Amino acid sequence: MKVTIKAAAERRIRGRYPFGHRGDILNAESGIGAGDVVDVYAESGPFLGRGYFNEGGATPLRMLTSKRENIDEAFYRRRIREALSRREGRIVGTNAMRVLHAEADGTPGIVADLFGEVLSVQFRNAGVERHRSQILKALQAETGATAAFERSDTGERSREGLEQQTGLLWGDVPERVTFYEDDLELYFQPLAAQKTGFYLDQRDNRRLMRGLVKEGEGFLDVYSYTGGFSLHAARAGARALAIDQDGVALQTLEGAARANRVSVGLRMGDALDVLKALESERQTFGAAVLDPPTLAKRRDDIPKAKRIFTEGATRALRMLKPGGVLLISTCAHYIRVEDLLDAARVAASEAECNAEVRGTTYQPADHPHMLNVPESLYLKSILLQKE
Amino acid sequence: MKVTIKAAAERRIRGRYPFGHRGDILNAESGIGAGDVVDVYAESGPFLGRGYFNEGGATPLRMLTSKRENIDEAFYRRRIREALSRREGRIVGTNAMRVLHAEADGTPGIVADLFGEVLSVQFRNAGVERHRSQILKALQAETGATAAFERSDTGERSREGLEQQTGLLWGDVPERVTFYEDDLELYFQPLAAQKTGFYLDQRDNRRLMRGLVKEGEGFLDVYSYTGGFSLHAARAGARALAIDQDGVALQTLEGAARANRVSVGLRMGDALDVLKALESERQTFGAAVLDPPTLAKRRDDIPKAKRIFTEGATRALRMLKPGGVLLISTCAHYIRVEDLLDAARVAASEAECNAEVRGTTYQPADHPHMLNVPESLYLKSILLQKE
Repeated sequence: MKVTIKAAAERRIRGRYPFGHRGDILNAESGIGAGDVVDVYAESGPFLGRGYFNEGGATPLRMLTSKRENIDEAFYRRRIREALSRREGRIVGTNAMRVLHAEADGTPGIVADLFGEVLSVQFRNAGVERHRSQILKALQAETGATAAFERSDTGERSREGLEQQTGLLWGDVPERVTFYEDDLELYFQPLAAQKTGFYLDQRDNRRLMRGLVKEGEGFLDVYSYTGGFSLHAARAGARALAIDQDGVALQTLEGAARANRVSVGLRMGDALDVLKALESERQTFGAAVLDPPTLAKRRDDIPKAKRIFTEGATRALRMLKPGGVLLISTCAHYIRVEDLLDAARVAASEAECNAEVRGTTYQPADHPHMLNVPESLYLKSILLQKE
Repeated sequence: MKVTIKAAAERRIRGRYPFGHRGDILNAESGIGAGDVVDVYAESGPFLGRGYFNEGGATPLRMLTSKRENIDEAFYRRRIREALSRREGRIVGTNAMRVLHAEADGTPGIVADLFGEVLSVQFRNAGVERHRSQILKALQAETGATAAFERSDTGERSREGLEQQTGLLWGDVPERVTFYEDDLELYFQPLAAQKTGFYLDQRDNRRLMRGLVKEGEGFLDVYSYTGGFSLHAARAGARALAIDQDGVALQTLEGAARANRVSVGLRMGDALDVLKALESERQTFGAAVLDPPTLAKRRDDIPKAKRIFTEGATRALRMLKPGGVLLISTCAHYIRVEDLLDAARVAASEAECNAEVRGTTYQPADHPHMLNVPESLYLKSILLQKE
């Protein structure tokens, strides 16, 4: 089966950009099924590689290789081995890591996180859905996971014409998947948790903040989810307070705090409302994290997202002691570091303080940012220190 | 003396932005001398603070404080103490650091670098020029420097109506100012060197690269200046090769290599020409740095700068071994991380390789990035690892 792309897209595809958008497709052979692997040709003639094609999908073409190679179990095994080797020696102090980060690892549409011996898998497009059994075999063989579950409940699937799908894949998946991060034992409920189970991508930031909190001081964890930041801060001796509107997540946090013999205060509710209440209670903190959900799935959402960052940061800065630190994170590809800085600048002005930008951080090594996929950079954080 | 600013600028100045541009000034009392300290008022009436005013300057108003405080030696001493406290415990392993980073430290127009007991000072505007004696007394008292020299030879001065000025300020300034960085002894000639003497701002990146080079492998230092990167790499056992067109800088590098008992290869010439020659010699390297001079002093310069980055990175990537790392730096405020990534992306495509973005780094703690001064962020680097 053959798909031809326009001259304008050829340069990008030759530069290893993995996506062919609707306007890039010149012509597709008839009879290609949704998610079929196709041979991709340039308008001028030459073979460019192979990829999944789904005419009706949000992104019709997803490149897999520039070679004439078979896309089979052996192919997926090679890609998984490459991904593991890319991470080698770089994820330490934990038995949980992202094994496949979709396009960034040359496996468009596959996200796989390993927690101890339990694998969490997400299939995002029609192509991987078609190859589900080869991919699962490859993952089982290369990761050695003894159990796996699926969390293909992402909005992306509907744009691909696929149903949401969750469930057990192989082995004996426990009701609680447990793993460790440094000296903390963490867990989640595989079929109830957000996303693929746990936010592994904030690992380095949790450690960063843990290194900055002071014993006995307040630590404010805004949009805490299951409280990874809070648990680390509490372990370092801070009085952590977690805010989230997800009651199930806060229950998990409560259980983890108990299991780790630390204490974390909980406030269930809308983050901005709770911040307002804390402010009126004249609470103060030595450190804080503002890590909201995506907020901007499209470029148009940026102004609204910035307003939320500004309000959250204003209130957090007001409650921070001088010298205290605030980490502001975004996991939205469309929100840039400059947007966070802008929002923080307005917030500092509102809070009548100044701050040093102590650092800017990005996603950890198991969520690689590959040069050929600009979209693979998504997690950006700024660390402010109030003057 | 009184200056009134327009309503539109009031919000920025209240938000601690230190610059009042030409269009921001509503009205200035007559008789204000170039660089005089003035009281700044909002169009609507209230007092906003004090700053230097130079009607003919590129930036007429430079805010110093939001209070009714005297701008005298005691004021400058307080600001220097604040700057030193901001850096406390954060600059280790060296006896050289930037003490004042102009606006970022609340001292617009003053840059001061301390090398052991010798201070390098730069005065950039008419305001600090008027207060030169108070500022020098304050610097001497707070830093304890036994000797100092001036390097006010910056283009910014001419836009302020000031002459270039260099020379000795106090004490016994040696012909060679020596200092250490980790286990390296470094030096420069105070009145012949570029800028204020030495690029302290690349300190953390030098250490980063030193940690990544492998013994016996090639290290390519493009736009080396006096070779800080090369000396660190050579100390770690790499075969360092430095490229610069400044013969005096390469002589200094040669002397420093001898003093530190390491060997660094030198190539004098235009960086891109030398890279081309090295490529035709089929040289290979395990690590490389591409750290050109500013390249973009205005927004209009960005496209040209990107072309230079792209060509340099293309050649460097071609000569890098798989797994090798390339650091690309810009010290231009106008060039963003995204511009470096764009240039690198095109370069990887030209060099027919892919790369992981292993990290993004910014200036070190003695060159603070303050939230209220967006312009204070200037040094940005991306670290690529060739696949």
